Amino acid sequence: MPQRKLDVVLDSVKRLLRVGATSNLVNLLQKQHPADLAQLFSELPDKDRQAAFSLLVERNSKLAMEGLSELGPEAGAALLSHRSAEEIVKLTQELPSDDAAAIIDYLPEELSVAVLEVIQKRPAGGDVGDLLEYPERTAGRIMNPKVFALSEEMTAGEAITALQNSRDVEVVFYLYVIDARRHLVGVVSLRRLLLVPPATPLKRIMTTDLISVHVDTDQEEVARQVASYNLLAIPVVDEENKLVGVITVDDVIDVIKDEATEDVYRLAGLSGDDRVFSTPSESLRKRLPWLQVNLVTAFLAASVVALFEGTIARWATLAVFMPVVAGMGGNAAMQTLTVIVRGIALGELTFANTRKALLKEAAVGLANGFGCGLVAALVVWAWKGSPGLGAVIGAAMVINMFVAATAGTLIPLGLRALKVDPALASSVFITTLTDVFGFLSFLGLASLLLRYVGAGG
Amino acid sequence: MPQRKLDVVLDSVKRLLRVGATSNLVNLLQKQHPADLAQLFSELPDKDRQAAFSLLVERNSKLAMEGLSELGPEAGAALLSHRSAEEIVKLTQELPSDDAAAIIDYLPEELSVAVLEVIQKRPAGGDVGDLLEYPERTAGRIMNPKVFALSEEMTAGEAITALQNSRDVEVVFYLYVIDARRHLVGVVSLRRLLLVPPATPLKRIMTTDLISVHVDTDQEEVARQVASYNLLAIPVVDEENKLVGVITVDDVIDVIKDEATEDVYRLAGLSGDDRVFSTPSESLRKRLPWLQVNLVTAFLAASVVALFEGTIARWATLAVFMPVVAGMGGNAAMQTLTVIVRGIALGELTFANTRKALLKEAAVGLANGFGCGLVAALVVWAWKGSPGLGAVIGAAMVINMFVAATAGTLIPLGLRALKVDPALASSVFITTLTDVFGFLSFLGLASLLLRYVGAGG
Repeated sequence: MPQRKLDVVLDSVKRLLRVGATSNLVNLLQKQHPADLAQLFSELPDKDRQAAFSLLVERNSKLAMEGLSELGPEAGAALLSHRSAEEIVKLTQELPSDDAAAIIDYLPEELSVAVLEVIQKRPAGGDVGDLLEYPERTAGRIMNPKVFALSEEMTAGEAITALQNSRDVEVVFYLYVIDARRHLVGVVSLRRLLLVPPATPLKRIMTTDLISVHVDTDQEEVARQVASYNLLAIPVVDEENKLVGVITVDDVIDVIKDEATEDVYRLAGLSGDDRVFSTPSESLRKRLPWLQVNLVTAFLAASVVALFEGTIARWATLAVFMPVVAGMGGNAAMQTLTVIVRGIALGELTFANTRKALLKEAAVGLANGFGCGLVAALVVWAWKGSPGLGAVIGAAMVINMFVAATAGTLIPLGLRALKVDPALASSVFITTLTDVFGFLSFLGLASLLLRYVGAGG
Repeated sequence: MPQRKLDVVLDSVKRLLRVGATSNLVNLLQKQHPADLAQLFSELPDKDRQAAFSLLVERNSKLAMEGLSELGPEAGAALLSHRSAEEIVKLTQELPSDDAAAIIDYLPEELSVAVLEVIQKRPAGGDVGDLLEYPERTAGRIMNPKVFALSEEMTAGEAITALQNSRDVEVVFYLYVIDARRHLVGVVSLRRLLLVPPATPLKRIMTTDLISVHVDTDQEEVARQVASYNLLAIPVVDEENKLVGVITVDDVIDVIKDEATEDVYRLAGLSGDDRVFSTPSESLRKRLPWLQVNLVTAFLAASVVALFEGTIARWATLAVFMPVVAGMGGNAAMQTLTVIVRGIALGELTFANTRKALLKEAAVGLANGFGCGLVAALVVWAWKGSPGLGAVIGAAMVINMFVAATAGTLIPLGLRALKVDPALASSVFITTLTDVFGFLSFLGLASLLLRYVGAGG
């Protein structure tokens, strides 16, 4: 079990740091896989992390940077942020340019600008500078511009030789074939190359019907294509269909995880980069404004209750059951909202089948309303001995859960039609709606009961 | 833009179905990629989907089944469920055995048993039956048992010849090396094979330090390893370290998506297989019980309010602001809960750094409480002209948001320590807690105010 093995290493690292046994420490770190190194870094207190990284960088800067990169761009940038722009440029050159670009992007504003200035002066750093010119969250930003490509004039044998001489290309998944002007014309698998006689022209064995993405394609769309066509890599082309990079499946996995986190986060009114170990002040800066928006909507719902203050003054029992109706609506709405938002994210819900989804959720909402409303009515009747109040809570619950289901479907779909992320229809807005409708239907019906029948009716 | 191209195909499919032009229809379907076929199936009304699938199955059962498999096991099983066990066995043999096993698992109970009986009688179907013997959500269940392996006694040249003769292995990612008793001893990349002279023994070029998982390993752990070590495939071994299968990165992507969906779902009190187009009765069956649990907890919170019925009868304004305190606590708790649950899922939060996370969330909770409490106090003072009520709502909010943050951290961590999925600490339980504490702190403090100062104080 890898976790336990790593715990042993972690303890040793802490101990060696404490006693200052730096050369033993570096030897131990040297033996770790970059992913394990990242895990170790993330579990060390801030000071120890910085110390361990600094020691390793002096001995093996490539491994140190790979470990840093596996931490993710934000935490990675934090580890570099006290260094000079020149040092950072030198160190990030140990990384693939897409990873380097992501880290530089997360450096503090001034440092990031300084780093880019240094890079622009060096021809070797051009790749990273180029990547940062593509908009965030696009294929261009996450692609690796070092893509191995073969000329369509080659034979299978020549292709194998070319491959054997391409030392600096780390992993080759598919071999892309280009014409004289670098237009992407086909793809051939490594295995296919082995199966044909060496003299076979690539043109004859390549597949021309290949899937590619444009540099401007949204990263989520890239991930969806790689996942649905089960690809290991997808080529990236510019507006003239020239091959400019490749996105591999490991980068796609990171995108899928990030997008999933983003969806969960937005539903809860959180910013995507608010992580477990963001500093308290960072997390506060990101959460408090959202909670204050929330506070405004909560007072909106409170003002609905205020309309019925007179009714409540006459019949205080209403205040006891009022939150039950609102809360149940909120929970039902969250269920619907989650199914719809996730359905959109996974591509299961399209414009073509919107109506079907709405009808289904409305039906489920009504049925849930009857299922819960009946129980609530009986409980209230038994508890307070008032069949009238029981009927009011039951009816209010049916109304509110129907509203919850339709709003939970329509709001995210409407946002998507407006090209806004549907997950932004977060719990905050939906629960305000279910609070307002819950209070309105329950207190409204109770007022009518009070006027025409009297409390206890 | 693939979506739009597919919309054109979808319209044609619908039109051809309507006019009964079956041979044109089959020709059109034949040209689609399995992933596109699945998308088409998912967007057709139930009857049309069944009709299109049945037509395609007769002409090209392999493609039809690949399309069905891409729909996911649940929807795939639904498409097969009116067929006989014999037919299903014949059709599922077109699929890799891990996909076949997943589909059979989702068939209606009786049919699934009948299918397995048929399979056990046929030696060729053994793989599927074997896979279904591993527990759900383990490596054994999702692995492909057809794994290409080389003997450690081979040379590079012999390995290439073996590879060229292995027609039935679909995609080869890494070449695993086994000893005479099928123990996994190393791995070599296809590219490495090409770079060495044909007479080189595999033993000399293979990497022996390789990462593998056990058949019983949880699929989420498998996904974590593949993702963090950037692997394309991971070998699966049994308790004697014998190679029994391989899990490829495309299956891992499915696991990552499923687990992300599950996390989002559990936070909202949903069952993992409740999708946009589950039937209304299915969704109802899955959601209603959860909402009823919810109803019980809502009445629990209501009974706290009932303790203060007398106070509310004297001062009905309390009923107006009571839900504000409870609701804000609920929202703050959802933020903390989401960060913690996602942090656990992504492996960022371990036992070693639990204390740090708790201290951070408690600090953020207190600060959020002061940030929102102050605003709420001023608004209530201005609105109702009662500084005392303002102070009560402010203080109650600080208390409740502190409780929300600590409970939002401790409950999921506690559940994990008990080896229960932390995401089960869903909104339902947390919001009950914040409702109870919100009502208790606000109404409790208000009662004290009323007793010692009087309303309007």
